[in-house]
Amino acid sequence: MPTNRQVLLRSRPQGIPRAEHFELAETPLPPLQPGQFRIRNRFLSVDPAMRGWVSAVANYSKPVGIGEVMRAEAAGEVCETRHPEFAIGDRVTGYFGWQHYAVSDGTNVGWRVPPDFDLPLSAALGVLGMNGLTAYFGLLDVGQPKAGDTVVVSTAAGAVGSCVGQLARIAGCRAVGIAGGAHKAALCRDEFGFDAAIDYKGATDLDAALRDACPRGIDVYFDNTAGAISDAVAPQLNVGARVAVCGTASVSSWDPWPQGPRVERHLLVKRARMQGFLIFDYQPRFDEARRRLADWVRRGLIRYREDFLDGIDAAPDAIAGLYRGENLGKRLIRLDPY
Amino acid sequence: MPTNRQVLLRSRPQGIPRAEHFELAETPLPPLQPGQFRIRNRFLSVDPAMRGWVSAVANYSKPVGIGEVMRAEAAGEVCETRHPEFAIGDRVTGYFGWQHYAVSDGTNVGWRVPPDFDLPLSAALGVLGMNGLTAYFGLLDVGQPKAGDTVVVSTAAGAVGSCVGQLARIAGCRAVGIAGGAHKAALCRDEFGFDAAIDYKGATDLDAALRDACPRGIDVYFDNTAGAISDAVAPQLNVGARVAVCGTASVSSWDPWPQGPRVERHLLVKRARMQGFLIFDYQPRFDEARRRLADWVRRGLIRYREDFLDGIDAAPDAIAGLYRGENLGKRLIRLDPY
Repeated sequence: MPTNRQVLLRSRPQGIPRAEHFELAETPLPPLQPGQFRIRNRFLSVDPAMRGWVSAVANYSKPVGIGEVMRAEAAGEVCETRHPEFAIGDRVTGYFGWQHYAVSDGTNVGWRVPPDFDLPLSAALGVLGMNGLTAYFGLLDVGQPKAGDTVVVSTAAGAVGSCVGQLARIAGCRAVGIAGGAHKAALCRDEFGFDAAIDYKGATDLDAALRDACPRGIDVYFDNTAGAISDAVAPQLNVGARVAVCGTASVSSWDPWPQGPRVERHLLVKRARMQGFLIFDYQPRFDEARRRLADWVRRGLIRYREDFLDGIDAAPDAIAGLYRGENLGKRLIRLDPY
Repeated sequence: MPTNRQVLLRSRPQGIPRAEHFELAETPLPPLQPGQFRIRNRFLSVDPAMRGWVSAVANYSKPVGIGEVMRAEAAGEVCETRHPEFAIGDRVTGYFGWQHYAVSDGTNVGWRVPPDFDLPLSAALGVLGMNGLTAYFGLLDVGQPKAGDTVVVSTAAGAVGSCVGQLARIAGCRAVGIAGGAHKAALCRDEFGFDAAIDYKGATDLDAALRDACPRGIDVYFDNTAGAISDAVAPQLNVGARVAVCGTASVSSWDPWPQGPRVERHLLVKRARMQGFLIFDYQPRFDEARRRLADWVRRGLIRYREDFLDGIDAAPDAIAGLYRGENLGKRLIRLDPY
């Protein structure tokens, strides 16, 4: 019988969680109770949102407790079962945590991967997982793009941003990405098909770069950053613009609460809307979204990149790495052997 | 033939327009061209939004030019006509400006008051004019209140705010007003039927006062102020809350642009929406709104207050007076004799 390897939360970070806030543990596999099954995780997800899950500041979910397995989405297959509806070999995704093996009674399963699913299992955590679903509902439902609109997205080369840009193109919009670094901006244009991309780190005048990239103004802004990028976007919003607030990657801490230019006058003069959303509210529509996203992936209309880190030892530093901007595409921990 | 008396914009204010930014002029009445008619104004409106109309900062309408008649809604009756569809004695409202007499070709008429209209003409500029319409569409359309919701409105004793609170009650909501001064807060409760009202000037702890007044959190915030009041409301928004951004009365100048606590995290965690709106976008539905508002006024479900200043000489200082908080209810210049 193998033992489990787990990443536990060791202490609560102020701001971005780093390697020192986690510890690795080896634990025996508990025997299964009736109605339970065991998942052998193959891929563990690494997401910017995990920062919020370990924060003590008010959030949409209970923070991970000290000493608990780090909450994370994972994909794997059933390796042992006492559950009538889950058979050995079934592939599943869910909140199985940063660990090699997870026990489930089925309630934390996010997706039962269909037997005929013909895309890589890792895609179930990225373009067909939370990232793709976030792009799908955030852009299409909250952003409400119309053909001819200009859609701007921040962290555009990332797992969510790259999908937003491609969905905007599918919707007949002009897609403009903002990314950190010339390489990422080039990736947006050359690999993900954005009409224009701005390297905000290299831009001497972000306002002018935005005006150049968005000659007809901005109709939809998919906001992954808040901060200076969003403050540059706000004055260029068009009448009736929609801002989908998805993340606040550029804010390193909410204690003390950061200040910024007030938004009310922009919203008023432009009759514009800013709206936060949470992907879990769209759960009843996940199947619809996965079906359409998979179809677009197969037809080559949505491309995606993955950034694999091998072995669970890489997990503790992996979130901080996202905020250092070191990944290109969806970051995943690949567990050996797969 | 009488002469016209007009209030002209003399210089462009930084911030709030004061008496010194205007001048009175006496001018002859121009002869009417075919297709024109002359209105004798009876009431001139004084609105917080007029600050924006004379500002050089980007806005939803072209700023009033120096030397031009101050833009304003007014109500009066046709006193001379060469227009086939407007007869002497017809009552009309529209953007007739701060002057005794206006010439119109009909295009700037906002409302042809029906002959059987049984409420005072002044009401056509307040509870049945821009103020009532703003409350109606801002609350019902942008705010989307549901029975049982808690609705908070700032400048609650004012012409818009008092109507918002009463519409919230009609919609089955808990109505909570925020007003400046104990007398205004009492007016909200005693005359306008708010469930609770907070005097933000007298409150030692606005956060605590809001928590007391909104024990189930805030579902809809009708924002007339921005600033410190809105910053206190934001952390108490409920999941799915809607913020209707109507005005920014507490911001004395947008140059330099004021800073405030960033809103993104509130919107994200609460899946909340902030939306600006402009009443003119709802023009096709004004008749529906006026009919329903008038019905509620007749049934005593909506009460309103008016604050009359007599004579056009009172106009130049009247906007600044709004921002000094000296009025109770809709401010109107009443022209002599009426």
